[in-house]
Amino acid sequence: MGNAKPERKVYVDYIATNPVLPAVLEAMLPYFQDVYGNPQSLHAWGDVAREAIEKAREQVAALISGNPEEVIFTSSGSEANNLAIKGLAQGQAGKGKHIIVSAIEHFSVLHAARTLEKAGFELTVVPVDKYGLVDPDEVAKSIRKDTILVSIMHANGEVGTIEPIAEIGKKVKEAGVLFHTDAVASTGNIPVNVNELGVDALSLAGNQFYGPKGAAALWLRKRLRLIPLMDGGVQEGGRRPGTENVPAIVGLGKAAELAVRDIPSRMEKLSPLRDKLIKGIPMAIEHVFLTGHPSQRLPHHASFCIEFIEGEAMLLLLNSQGIAVSSGSACTSRALKASHVLIAMGIPHEIAQGSLLFSLGVDNNEADIDYVLKKLPPIVDRLRQMSPLYAKFMKEKRG
Amino acid sequence: MGNAKPERKVYVDYIATNPVLPAVLEAMLPYFQDVYGNPQSLHAWGDVAREAIEKAREQVAALISGNPEEVIFTSSGSEANNLAIKGLAQGQAGKGKHIIVSAIEHFSVLHAARTLEKAGFELTVVPVDKYGLVDPDEVAKSIRKDTILVSIMHANGEVGTIEPIAEIGKKVKEAGVLFHTDAVASTGNIPVNVNELGVDALSLAGNQFYGPKGAAALWLRKRLRLIPLMDGGVQEGGRRPGTENVPAIVGLGKAAELAVRDIPSRMEKLSPLRDKLIKGIPMAIEHVFLTGHPSQRLPHHASFCIEFIEGEAMLLLLNSQGIAVSSGSACTSRALKASHVLIAMGIPHEIAQGSLLFSLGVDNNEADIDYVLKKLPPIVDRLRQMSPLYAKFMKEKRG
Repeated sequence: MGNAKPERKVYVDYIATNPVLPAVLEAMLPYFQDVYGNPQSLHAWGDVAREAIEKAREQVAALISGNPEEVIFTSSGSEANNLAIKGLAQGQAGKGKHIIVSAIEHFSVLHAARTLEKAGFELTVVPVDKYGLVDPDEVAKSIRKDTILVSIMHANGEVGTIEPIAEIGKKVKEAGVLFHTDAVASTGNIPVNVNELGVDALSLAGNQFYGPKGAAALWLRKRLRLIPLMDGGVQEGGRRPGTENVPAIVGLGKAAELAVRDIPSRMEKLSPLRDKLIKGIPMAIEHVFLTGHPSQRLPHHASFCIEFIEGEAMLLLLNSQGIAVSSGSACTSRALKASHVLIAMGIPHEIAQGSLLFSLGVDNNEADIDYVLKKLPPIVDRLRQMSPLYAKFMKEKRG
Repeated sequence: MGNAKPERKVYVDYIATNPVLPAVLEAMLPYFQDVYGNPQSLHAWGDVAREAIEKAREQVAALISGNPEEVIFTSSGSEANNLAIKGLAQGQAGKGKHIIVSAIEHFSVLHAARTLEKAGFELTVVPVDKYGLVDPDEVAKSIRKDTILVSIMHANGEVGTIEPIAEIGKKVKEAGVLFHTDAVASTGNIPVNVNELGVDALSLAGNQFYGPKGAAALWLRKRLRLIPLMDGGVQEGGRRPGTENVPAIVGLGKAAELAVRDIPSRMEKLSPLRDKLIKGIPMAIEHVFLTGHPSQRLPHHASFCIEFIEGEAMLLLLNSQGIAVSSGSACTSRALKASHVLIAMGIPHEIAQGSLLFSLGVDNNEADIDYVLKKLPPIVDRLRQMSPLYAKFMKEKRG
């Protein structure tokens, strides 16, 4: 340990965000200086920019088996979620004011719903089990006559659990209620098909599948009433004003195209590496358990709670060894609070503090995993030796 | 005319959007594949990304003589305007519900204010004179005890007029009311100093001064209560969640740094080209007049109404000659309506249809202007020969 240069650099925090693939950057490059027109302009410079974003719209639609005209580009997954929750709830407010979300949603869904609650909407937050799974029957029985929107995430970015969206979608559709899913963590990493999932709206973000930051999308089934978050120009059918971020949208489109081709090979490459972590870490360290579902989880995601440890100290020591990892959502990591996801799964606060989240990407290999498995145990030992909670536990254990 | 390849390509629509400068793209490039971390992450990859956006925050603050901690990055000027209008009005709603804007604001201000009006706020829209100028006394006398926010743009993108913001700011401040200015069209093109202008909040956008699309900012004086448009993570002090668009923010910062250095030389280069258009077009074409203020206008902006002409037809014929120009705001050009700005200035609908807007940039030169001055008159002639209004006018003129 110490300040020496680490032996290796291992980025296993892809879910926080990722590098763009070379082909994605290559696709973007002409749109900074050569094709720089405003897609709304009525001249050749505008025409080529507009054609570029319409091509990207087709590429994104193809990734989720939707229609291009149903894709609304946004600047982030958080914006797509806010637009879905606030825009759809306000758009349907004439029919009722009750909305349903799960307890483990990203804050861009959960807090958007809380904001609506303050504005007079009613909110039901459905619980999850110890694996982070939402029970479709729990959703069904929460639906009331005045329920206008249900939002349950496709996969949880903190614990990797994939929710039974198709089953939930069937029940929500039977009740005639709109169904949104935050598929930011899943889209581009596993197959996502809006028709098979039975959703009316779906959020995705390019920087979860080797696309650029600054480009994301809300897919929204045709003819659904949506109140925009912002007022202004006629971009995105008036549903999302502001000059289109052409290079980023082009990059998102290219990343979507590559994902359609490469999801199977990426899954095949990454799930054995994930499984090596899932098996290896509990073998190398005592008092550790996997969080999220053991099998129904993202192929690039392995998350744990390491007892008697404070997660941030662990991150810093891992960082000093060249390993980039996180203890929860990057969006809230600087808030240094125990994750609401782990708490909702019934994990006690002090154990939730020891959360550790590995998310893998195409640049990772087996040697990266070996390096993590070598470096993590002595760090955990070192931190436990300084932990009053561990000392107490060991004392009690010894009797 | 016809379909032959044009002799020259002349982009004089910089206000619709612009190419990034080579130095801006160069500054951005490392942030797609090398420095790709999430600025919120607690490891080295996150640290370098965070340092990059904090440097950009300083560069943007320096451009407007504000403090870095007062800069909130957004994805577009429209978003910055929406955040300012909705966020500040809702943040001060406890003190009153009256807001004031001018009649020539961009729709991201004007329509945001209309949305607030529907939600129970009261709105006063102050008029402009024939030059598009807001009268500071008109603003002052519109202020009521329950006025919480005044928003008047710094410069109008459609007619180039620069408003007397410092004078308005003084009066608004005397009344103890918050003052926002949409400085999207001006920032980076003329000196902008938030203290000299006497504003509390200011919107700017990188793609107006050779920065990238997808990065803009709201400068907001410290300790002002702002309700975010979006809920989610802790980014931008919780005021604008969503993973930061690091490359675009870095590009915005670089463009700001270059603007600080280059605004004087750009103004010196572009204002003679602008003046050549302002003198040349009325000499070459009958029944044409400058819109906006003759001298108090943006140095890169020349706008006209060409009577008896339909603007879109003119744009298409100019495009066939390789000239990119617009007839109004790019954000609404596809709506094909007469500009609310020109109407507010007292220009009749049928004349406002013949609006033509030249906005110049650093790549333009005198030969570009000569080309425009050569190509425009025959296009106007041709269109007038097909115009029933022109035939009627000529018949009446002949008696």
